[in-house]
Amino acid sequence: MFRVTREIDFCYGHRLLNYEGKCRFLHGHNGKAVIAIEAEKLDERGMVLDFSDIKRVVSNWIDENLDHRMILHREDPARATLEKLGEPLYLLDENPTAENIAREIFNYAHAQGFPIVECRLWETPHCFATYYR
Amino acid sequence: MFRVTREIDFCYGHRLLNYEGKCRFLHGHNGKAVIAIEAEKLDERGMVLDFSDIKRVVSNWIDENLDHRMILHREDPARATLEKLGEPLYLLDENPTAENIAREIFNYAHAQGFPIVECRLWETPHCFATYYR
Amino acid sequence: MFRVTREIDFCYGHRLLNYEGKCRFLHGHNGKAVIAIEAEKLDERGMVLDFSDIKRVVSNWIDENLDHRMILHREDPARATLEKLGEPLYLLDENPTAENIAREIFNYAHAQGFPIVECRLWETPHCFATYYR
Amino acid sequence: MFRVTREIDFCYGHRLLNYEGKCRFLHGHNGKAVIAIEAEKLDERGMVLDFSDIKRVVSNWIDENLDHRMILHREDPARATLEKLGEPLYLLDENPTAENIAREIFNYAHAQGFPIVECRLWETPHCFATYYR
Amino acid sequence: MFRVTREIDFCYGHRLLNYEGKCRFLHGHNGKAVIAIEAEKLDERGMVLDFSDIKRVVSNWIDENLDHRMILHREDPARATLEKLGEPLYLLDENPTAENIAREIFNYAHAQGFPIVECRLWETPHCFATYYR
Amino acid sequence: MFRVTREIDFCYGHRLLNYEGKCRFLHGHNGKAVIAIEAEKLDERGMVLDFSDIKRVVSNWIDENLDHRMILHREDPARATLEKLGEPLYLLDENPTAENIAREIFNYAHAQGFPIVECRLWETPHCFATYYR
Repeated sequence: MFRVTREIDFCYGHRLLNYEGKCRFLHGHNGKAVIAIEAEKLDERGMVLDFSDIKRVVSNWIDENLDHRMILHREDPARATLEKLGEPLYLLDENPTAENIAREIFNYAHAQGFPIVECRLWETPHCFATYYR
Repeated sequence: MFRVTREIDFCYGHRLLNYEGKCRFLHGHNGKAVIAIEAEKLDERGMVLDFSDIKRVVSNWIDENLDHRMILHREDPARATLEKLGEPLYLLDENPTAENIAREIFNYAHAQGFPIVECRLWETPHCFATYYR
Repeated sequence: MFRVTREIDFCYGHRLLNYEGKCRFLHGHNGKAVIAIEAEKLDERGMVLDFSDIKRVVSNWIDENLDHRMILHREDPARATLEKLGEPLYLLDENPTAENIAREIFNYAHAQGFPIVECRLWETPHCFATYYR
Repeated sequence: MFRVTREIDFCYGHRLLNYEGKCRFLHGHNGKAVIAIEAEKLDERGMVLDFSDIKRVVSNWIDENLDHRMILHREDPARATLEKLGEPLYLLDENPTAENIAREIFNYAHAQGFPIVECRLWETPHCFATYYR
Repeated sequence: MFRVTREIDFCYGHRLLNYEGKCRFLHGHNGKAVIAIEAEKLDERGMVLDFSDIKRVVSNWIDENLDHRMILHREDPARATLEKLGEPLYLLDENPTAENIAREIFNYAHAQGFPIVECRLWETPHCFATYYR
Repeated sequence: MFRVTREIDFCYGHRLLNYEGKCRFLHGHNGKAVIAIEAEKLDERGMVLDFSDIKRVVSNWIDENLDHRMILHREDPARATLEKLGEPLYLLDENPTAENIAREIFNYAHAQGFPIVECRLWETPHCFATYYR
C-alpha cells in the first residue's frame, strides 16, 4: 500500500465560544495542514498522486479561504462587527477548533473527488488534531 | 473519526541492564512524549478533549515522576547507591527502554480513566517507540 | 564570552495598517520569541543566567500580555469594536510587525534590568525578525 | 503492541521520466527514510529491536547503495552517459519517485528477514511517501 | 538595529571536483537558503523590508536558476554530456560547495540592490555555510 | 567572509551542584553541539573546511568522551560512588552547565589547532548556550 502526504502552511485567527480558557479571546496560529492520500497501485509515473496536484487542489483552496483570515463560529458575537470592518471571515457551524478545521479541509478535498484518507491540523508546534473516516 | 495529539517535553536519565552497547552507562535524554486520544464525536465545544486537559493530567504526572530524574530498572545495581545520595528515582520492573517508558506513560493515563489510544516516546531526535493496545 | 538563549512559544493575532497584502486582514501566528543574554564570566553556579529565570521574567510577561490575544496598532479602526466585545488587546504605537513585536519584548526585558542582548520573533516557520541595540 | 521507529538521513539525486514538471530534470534531495518495526512482546532487554540494529542493517545498505548517488529509472536516457562518466548509479525498474524509493528500502529490509512494517521517505521538508504491506 | 530573515526551500543536484569523498559523485540536496536584511530604522509600515519582497526578488530567482537542476563547476567533465541531454545546468567558476552557493545567492541579491547582509545555505539537516561581507 | 557550521548530536547525563531547582538531581539530555569555523578565503576545493573534517575531529572526541555518559563536577559527591560502579564519567572543574560544556568542546577543538570560532550547546529543544572568544 502506498500513501503520500503533504504539509501545507498557512496562518489564521480564531476564538472558541463556550470555553473558559484563553482560547475564548481572538488570537491566531500558524496552522500546518497535513494531507494524506492512499492507493494500492501507483500510476504509470510511479505516483499515488503528484505532490503538486495536492498543492494545486488543497493549497489553493486554503490560500483563498483560510489563510490570513479569522475562522469563526457562525454565531460568534464578533461576526457582525468584523464583517462591518470588511474582514473576510471563514465561518463554521461549530467552534473553529483544530478538530473542526481538520474536518473542514478533509471535507473540501473529498468533495472535489480528491482521494484523501486523513487530514491533520497542527495548531501549535506541540498540538495537532486528525480527522479521518 | 477524530484524534487529538499533544507532545510533552521532559528530560530524564537512564541506563540499560544486560546490554552490550553504550546504553549500559548512565546517561540521559530529552524525551518527548506524544499522547493521542480518539473520539467518534466531538463534545459541545468541538473537541475530543481539551489540549490543556491532556497537559493537566499527563504533563503534571510526568513533571512529578519522570522529569529531571533517573529512570532505572528496579534491580539496577546503582539503585541503592543513588537512593543513599538522595536521588529521586523512578523505578520500572523492566529495563527503562523507550518502549517501556512509552508503556508506563500510556498505562498511567489509562488508569486515570483518560481515553488514550497511543503513546510515543522520542528518545533521541531520530528514534522513538510507540505503545498502543 | 558566553551567551544563553531561550525560546518561548506563544500565539497571537494581529493585522497591519497601510499595507496592501493579506496581512491587512485580522489573522494570527504561533510566535516564537528567542531571548539572548550575554556575560563575560559565569556566576558561581556556572551560568550566565538561569534558563528558568529567563522563563520567569520574560515568559510570564508574554503569557499575560501577548499570548492568546490580538496585538494591534493603537489607531487600528478595529480597536474600539474589539474592546467593546471585551477582547484583551495589546496595543503598539506602530504596526504590530514581527520587527516591532521583537523590539517590544526586548524593551520589556531591558526595562526590568534584564541583561538581554537580542530578541528574535519567529512569525512563521520560515520568517523572523531580530532586534538588538 | 510496541513499535520502534528510526529515521535515517541520506542524500541522493534523481529525475522522473514521462513527467511534465521540474522533476524531469536531474536534481536531488536530502532524503529521510523512516523505518518502523513492530512486536507484540518485548525481548528480555525490553526492546522490539535495538535501534542500533536498525541502523546496522538498513542504514549501512542505504549508505552503500543510495547515499550520494543518482537513483534513476533503468531506462533513463541519461544512464549510459552517466555510467561512462563512472557515476555509481542505483537503478529502479520504475520511476525513482518517493513512493518507489520507500518501497525499495522496505523490500530490502524485508528480504533480510527484518520485521519492518512500514517505510516512509521524506523527499522534501514537506512531502513524504509511505509504503506498507 | 533590526534584521529580518527569511528561509527559502529549494532542491538541487551537484558534485565536487578534486574531492576524495562521496561528494565527487552526482547527487543532490534539499537546500534551504536563509536571507538576512538589516536596517537601523523601520519604514512607515514598521518593516525593514516586506518578507514578501524577499520572496519576490530572491525566491523567484532561485526558482528559475537553482531549483530542480544540477549546479556544477563550469569545467565539470559531465557538463557537455548533460547539456546534450537537454539538462538546464547552473554553472559556477568554482566547486558548487555550500560556501560557493551561499555566496552566489548573496551576490545575486546584492547586485539587484537588495540590502542583504548575510546568506546561509543549509546543505543537509545538520550542515550549513554562511557568506557575508 | 565564509563560515561553515555543523551540528553534532549526542546524549549525556549531568546534575548541578549548589543549585535549588530540579537540575540538582541526576538526569540527562540530548545535547546538540553546533561547531562554527570561519575563513576569509576558501581553499582550492571551495571549502572553509570539509564538513567531514569537523565530524572527524570534533564528533569523534564527543563520541569517546561525552556521549552516553555522565558529565559531572569534579567535586560532585556522587563521583566516587559512580566510579566504583564502573561508570565512565567526564569531569569538569565547574558545574556541567550548558555554558561550561559548550566551552569544553570549544577548547578541545581549539587545542587541536582547529579554527573554531564558536560552539553552541543545545541542552533542550528550547535552550542553548554559546561560547566564543
